Amino acid sequence: MRPSGRAPDQMRELKFEPGFTKHAEGSCLVSFGETRVLVTASVEDRVPPFLRGKGQGWVTAEYGMLPRATHTRGNREAAKGKQSGRTQEIQRLIGRSLRAVVDLTKLGERQITVDCDVIQADGGTRTASISGAWVALRLAVDGLKLDVDPIEKQVAAVSCGIHNGQAVLDLDYIEDSAAGCDGNFVLTSDGNIVEAQVTAEGECYDEEGLLRLLRLARIGCNEIFQAQLKAAGR
Amino acid sequence: MRPSGRAPDQMRELKFEPGFTKHAEGSCLVSFGETRVLVTASVEDRVPPFLRGKGQGWVTAEYGMLPRATHTRGNREAAKGKQSGRTQEIQRLIGRSLRAVVDLTKLGERQITVDCDVIQADGGTRTASISGAWVALRLAVDGLKLDVDPIEKQVAAVSCGIHNGQAVLDLDYIEDSAAGCDGNFVLTSDGNIVEAQVTAEGECYDEEGLLRLLRLARIGCNEIFQAQLKAAGR
Amino acid sequence: MRPSGRAPDQMRELKFEPGFTKHAEGSCLVSFGETRVLVTASVEDRVPPFLRGKGQGWVTAEYGMLPRATHTRGNREAAKGKQSGRTQEIQRLIGRSLRAVVDLTKLGERQITVDCDVIQADGGTRTASISGAWVALRLAVDGLKLDVDPIEKQVAAVSCGIHNGQAVLDLDYIEDSAAGCDGNFVLTSDGNIVEAQVTAEGECYDEEGLLRLLRLARIGCNEIFQAQLKAAGR
Amino acid sequence: MRPSGRAPDQMRELKFEPGFTKHAEGSCLVSFGETRVLVTASVEDRVPPFLRGKGQGWVTAEYGMLPRATHTRGNREAAKGKQSGRTQEIQRLIGRSLRAVVDLTKLGERQITVDCDVIQADGGTRTASISGAWVALRLAVDGLKLDVDPIEKQVAAVSCGIHNGQAVLDLDYIEDSAAGCDGNFVLTSDGNIVEAQVTAEGECYDEEGLLRLLRLARIGCNEIFQAQLKAAGR
Amino acid sequence: MRPSGRAPDQMRELKFEPGFTKHAEGSCLVSFGETRVLVTASVEDRVPPFLRGKGQGWVTAEYGMLPRATHTRGNREAAKGKQSGRTQEIQRLIGRSLRAVVDLTKLGERQITVDCDVIQADGGTRTASISGAWVALRLAVDGLKLDVDPIEKQVAAVSCGIHNGQAVLDLDYIEDSAAGCDGNFVLTSDGNIVEAQVTAEGECYDEEGLLRLLRLARIGCNEIFQAQLKAAGR
Amino acid sequence: MRPSGRAPDQMRELKFEPGFTKHAEGSCLVSFGETRVLVTASVEDRVPPFLRGKGQGWVTAEYGMLPRATHTRGNREAAKGKQSGRTQEIQRLIGRSLRAVVDLTKLGERQITVDCDVIQADGGTRTASISGAWVALRLAVDGLKLDVDPIEKQVAAVSCGIHNGQAVLDLDYIEDSAAGCDGNFVLTSDGNIVEAQVTAEGECYDEEGLLRLLRLARIGCNEIFQAQLKAAGR
Repeated sequence: MRPSGRAPDQMRELKFEPGFTKHAEGSCLVSFGETRVLVTASVEDRVPPFLRGKGQGWVTAEYGMLPRATHTRGNREAAKGKQSGRTQEIQRLIGRSLRAVVDLTKLGERQITVDCDVIQADGGTRTASISGAWVALRLAVDGLKLDVDPIEKQVAAVSCGIHNGQAVLDLDYIEDSAAGCDGNFVLTSDGNIVEAQVTAEGECYDEEGLLRLLRLARIGCNEIFQAQLKAAGR
Repeated sequence: MRPSGRAPDQMRELKFEPGFTKHAEGSCLVSFGETRVLVTASVEDRVPPFLRGKGQGWVTAEYGMLPRATHTRGNREAAKGKQSGRTQEIQRLIGRSLRAVVDLTKLGERQITVDCDVIQADGGTRTASISGAWVALRLAVDGLKLDVDPIEKQVAAVSCGIHNGQAVLDLDYIEDSAAGCDGNFVLTSDGNIVEAQVTAEGECYDEEGLLRLLRLARIGCNEIFQAQLKAAGR
Repeated sequence: MRPSGRAPDQMRELKFEPGFTKHAEGSCLVSFGETRVLVTASVEDRVPPFLRGKGQGWVTAEYGMLPRATHTRGNREAAKGKQSGRTQEIQRLIGRSLRAVVDLTKLGERQITVDCDVIQADGGTRTASISGAWVALRLAVDGLKLDVDPIEKQVAAVSCGIHNGQAVLDLDYIEDSAAGCDGNFVLTSDGNIVEAQVTAEGECYDEEGLLRLLRLARIGCNEIFQAQLKAAGR
Repeated sequence: MRPSGRAPDQMRELKFEPGFTKHAEGSCLVSFGETRVLVTASVEDRVPPFLRGKGQGWVTAEYGMLPRATHTRGNREAAKGKQSGRTQEIQRLIGRSLRAVVDLTKLGERQITVDCDVIQADGGTRTASISGAWVALRLAVDGLKLDVDPIEKQVAAVSCGIHNGQAVLDLDYIEDSAAGCDGNFVLTSDGNIVEAQVTAEGECYDEEGLLRLLRLARIGCNEIFQAQLKAAGR
Repeated sequence: MRPSGRAPDQMRELKFEPGFTKHAEGSCLVSFGETRVLVTASVEDRVPPFLRGKGQGWVTAEYGMLPRATHTRGNREAAKGKQSGRTQEIQRLIGRSLRAVVDLTKLGERQITVDCDVIQADGGTRTASISGAWVALRLAVDGLKLDVDPIEKQVAAVSCGIHNGQAVLDLDYIEDSAAGCDGNFVLTSDGNIVEAQVTAEGECYDEEGLLRLLRLARIGCNEIFQAQLKAAGR
Repeated sequence: MRPSGRAPDQMRELKFEPGFTKHAEGSCLVSFGETRVLVTASVEDRVPPFLRGKGQGWVTAEYGMLPRATHTRGNREAAKGKQSGRTQEIQRLIGRSLRAVVDLTKLGERQITVDCDVIQADGGTRTASISGAWVALRLAVDGLKLDVDPIEKQVAAVSCGIHNGQAVLDLDYIEDSAAGCDGNFVLTSDGNIVEAQVTAEGECYDEEGLLRLLRLARIGCNEIFQAQLKAAGR
C-alpha cells in the first residue's frame, strides 16, 4: 500500500494552469499533487555568443526553489551567492529535455529561457518542471506565429522508484525519502526516451527493475501528454 | 487623469490569500492590483548568534523577484551570485518595519524569517511585501499559541508619488516610471509612522508636497489594515 | 541636554579641506565633528554602456569605510568579497542626490565617479559624504572648463532625530545609538527636498515629528551650503 | 567501423597504477586509453557536521580537470571562482557510486575524501574516475586495518552510446562528440546497477536501445572489475 | 640625474603623524614624499583559531588602496568582490615583517591587526606601509602597558632600484615605472635583513648590483629608524 | 648533517619528462626529488586586451596544487571559490620569470599560458615549477617553427636557506619547515639574477648570509640548466 493510498501505476492529480503570469510570453503553473512549479518562457531576439550568426536559436532553462517551498526553510541561493550542484544538475536536464523536441534552426535567431520556480515541493519537482515547461514553451512559440513550427513533438517527465519493494509511479516526498531506488524518465510523445536516469539509494537494482520503472514511466507520461495538450489549447 | 482611471486617492484592488502554501507556518499571496507577492513566515527555535542567551527573539526578512516577474526578464540573482543593492535595501526595510510592531522579548528565543517573493511586478512590490508580511507573521504567531501576544499592532505600507503634477496613491508601474517624485510610507494601525522615504526623481519637492503624500498614505494604509484583519481571521 | 552639550539645532564643527589628494580631479576631506570622510571625484571620458551614444553624462558614487574607522574594527569588505547592504544603500543615495542637481546633458559624454571613504566615523557618515561630494564634484567640474555649467544648484545632507524626546540636529554616534527615531534629509540650495528618509528605531513618530525634523534639517543644510561655497572658492 | 578500429564491445586499454603519489592513504593513476585520471583517497578522523555522533562514517568525492587536460585550454575553475554545473554533477555521481558499496557504519567515524583529477581527457573521464576511485578507496581502507571490512563489493563505471547507428562500448572523445545518444552505467561486482543514465544527444532511443547499452556496460565493467582486483593486490 | 633632483642615496621627505585617527589603539599617517598611507593597529583579546590555547598572540596585516589613490581611478576591490594578487602579496609581506620583530609569546593571547590604507600613491606604498606599521604597532602595544615588551626591535622598509643605470634609493612613481630592476628591503634596527626581494624588470642584475642596492637600503632604513622613534615618542 | 644526508650544496635528484601529456603544445613533468609538478604550455593566437594591436605577444602562468599533493589534504581552491594569496604570489612569480627571458615582440601576437600543477609536494614547488616551465615553453615555441627565436636564454630557479645554522641548497619539506631563513633565486643561463627573494623565518640574516645563499643558488641552477637542455632535446 502506498502512503497516499494510490495504486502503483497511479499519478497524483495533474493540473496545468496556463497564463498564470501576464508578462511572460508563455507561462504555466503546474501541479503534480502538492508539488507546484511556476514556469515562464521568455523570448529574446538574440542568441548566446557561441551561436551568433549561425542561423539558429536556443532554448535554455533555469531552476530555483523558493526558500520555504520545502518542509523546513532552506537558505536562499541568491543570498548564499551560488547555486547548488543539485540546482545546476536540474536546470541542465530541463534544458536538454526541451531541446530534444525543438528544431533550433526553425526557431530562428531567438533564445527562449524557461524559468522553473518551485512554489511548493512534495517530490518530483524536476519532472513537474519539465512537463510544465513544454506547455509554457508551446504557448510562447504559438505567440511568435512562425511559418514553420519548431516544436516537433511533446516531451514530459515523471519519476518512478522502488518503494517497499514495489515499483511505483510519481513518488511524493514521503515515498521519495524512503525509496530504495529512484529514477526520472523523460519521454517524447512518439514513444522514445530522451533521458533515463535511475539511481540506487540503498539497494541496487537489476535489468528487470529498470524495465519495470520504464514501463510505469510510459503510463505516467501518456497521462501528462493529454493534459499538456489540453492546457495548450490543442 | 491617472492612466488606470483611478481617483488620486484610490488604491488598486487589494487581495490577501492566506495559507497559499502548506509548509510555512504562515503564508499569504498578496495582490496590489497586478503586483503579486508570495509571502511565507518560517519559525525556527533558535536565534542568530548576536542574540543568543538574551531571552529575546528576532524577526527578519528576505526579498526576491522571480526572473520573469517583470516586463522583460531579469537575471536570476542566484545565478549572478549576488543580491543587488535594491534587493538588500528592500529586505532591510521589510525586516525593520515588522520589528517595529513586535515585542521581541515576548516572542521568546525564536526567529521568524519572512520571505517575500515577487511573482508578478507592476509597481509597489516593497509596499505589498510589507503589507502581506504582516498577515503571514500574524498567522505564524497565532500557530505558536503563546501566552502573551508579541505583535503589538498592525503595520502596512503604501507608495505615493507626484505624477503629472498630481499627488497620487499606490502607483502602478506606468505611473512609477514617470513620477516626478516617489515615496514609500510604512504606518502602524495606531496612526504612527515607522518609516517615510520620499525621493525626487527629476523634480524636487517641498514640505507641502511631503505632507500631501503622507495624507494619501494614511488613506491607503487604513484600507490595507481592514483587509489584513479579514485575511488573518480577526 | 545633548551629550555633547550642543543646542538642539546646533551642528557639529564643519570643515571642508579641498584638494586633500593630488591625483583626483576634485577632492575634499569633509569633517562633521569627529566624522571624517575623504571624497574624490574622478572624471572619465566615457559613460556606462546604457548611456552610450545618448549625448549625456553620468554621475555615480561609491562608498566605503576603512576597517578601523569605527570603535571596534569591522571586517574589510574587499576581504569578505562583498559590499554590505548598508554600503550599497548609502552609495545609491549619494549618487541619486548628486544627480538631482546636475544637468547630465550639459555634462557631455563623461562619467564622474565620486568616492566617499570614511576615515573616521562618529555618526552621520552618509550626510557628510553627500555634503563633501558636492564640493569634490564642483571642483572637478570647474577643472573641465565647460562652456555651460552642468551643476544647477547645491545639495547637502544632514541627519536629524529624536533623542531623549527632543528633536536634535546632526546626531553624533552616542545620540545615534540611542535615538528613538532617526532620519536623513537631502536638500537643495533653493529650498527643495531631494530625499527625506525617517526611520523609527524603537518609538514611532507622527506628522508633527516629521515636520520638526525637516525644519531642523533646513537649519543645518543652510550652514553647510555656506561652508561648501567657501571651500569651493565661490 | 569505430574511429579507433575497436570492436563495438571492446574497451580501450585499461591501466591502473596504484600508489602513484606518496602522501595519500590510497592513490591510483587510472587510464582508459588516453584518458588519465589521478585519484587519491584521503582519510580523516572526523565526519561532516550532519553525521557527528551518529557512529558512522562518510565517503565523498571531488572532481577537477587540469586546464590543459583537453584539446583546447579551459579556464581554471579556481581562477573563475566557481565549479561548473558539470563538475558538480560528476562529483556527486562519484560520491553516490562509492557509498553504494560501502557500509558506512562499519567504516566508523571517519571521512574518506576521494579526489579525481583529470590529467588528460579523451572521453569517459567520469567513468574512469569512478573505476579508479574504487582502487584508491580499497587501498586506503586496507591501510586502516579495520576488524570488519566496510567495502562490500566492487563498483565500476563505463560509458556506452550509439555512434553511427551502432551501440558501442567505452566511447573516446571522437565518438562521444558525434554520438546520437550516450550513457553512463555504474555497476557492482554482483551484477546490480547503481546508476544508469542515458541521454539522447540528437536522436532519441527506445527500450531496446537502452537494454543494448546496458548489456555492453556489463561486458566493460567485468573487464574493469578484474583489473581493479589486480591493482589492489587481491 | 634623478627626475626629482634627489641624490642617488637620498630619501624623499619622511613624515610620521602619530594618532591620526582616534578609535584605533595605535595609528599613524606615514608619508614618503607624496605617498601617504594611513596605518591603524587594532587590538583584540582573542587569537585566530589555529593559535587558541597556545599561550601566544598574533600580528597580522591588511592592505588596501583607495580607488583614486592613483593617477587614474582603479576599481574598488570591495565592489569587484576580491582582492588582487598584488594586494594579498603586500599584506602577507607586511605581516611577516612585523612578526619578525615581535615575541608573540610575550604579547599574550591577543591579536593585533594592522590596516594599511593608501590615501595617495607615488611609489613605495608597501615600504611606507611597513615603516608606518611599526609606529602604529608600537603605540598600540604601549597602550597595553604590559610587564614585558613584546617588541624586540624596530623594523623598516625601503625600495631601491636601478634607474638609468644608476642604483637609487626610495623610488617614486616616475622612477619605479622606468626602473630596470627594483627591490624592496626590510631591515631591522640591529642591522639584519628580514626580507630582500629584488626583481628584474627588463634588465637582469648581478651579485654586485644586489649588494649595491642593499647598501642603499641600509642608508634609507637608518633614517627611517630615527623618524620612527621620534614619532613613537621614544 | 642534512635530514636527507645530502651535502649542503647538493640538489635532490632532478628529472624532466618532456611530452607528459598529449594535448598541450609543450609539456613536462618535472621532479625535484619527491616534488613533482606537471607543467603544460598552451599557445593561443590572441593576446589579452591590454596588448591588442601592439604587435607583441604575452607569456603568463597559473599555478595550482592538487588537494592531496601535501601531507594532509588541503581544500580545493575551485570549491572554496578563490585562489589563496600564496597561489597568486607564486603564479605571478612564474610569469615574471619566464617573461624575463622571452622577447615578446619576436613571439608575435600570441599568448602562451603555462600551467603548473603540483602533483606531489615536498618543498620547492615554485622553483620546480619555474624550472619545468622553461622546458614546456621551449617545446611549445619549437612547435611554432618561427623564423626568429623569441627565447633568449634559459631561466631556472632553486631554493636555498639556512638550516641548523648551515646554508643549504634545494630544501625539501623537512628542511623548509625548520629553516631559519629561506629564499628563492631565479637565475638566467648567462649568470644574471631575475629575482632574489629571501625571507627570515625566525632568525634574521645579514649581507654575508645573503651572498652565501646566492652562491649555492648558482650551483643548483647550473645543474638545472644542463638538465633542461637535455629534456628539450638541445
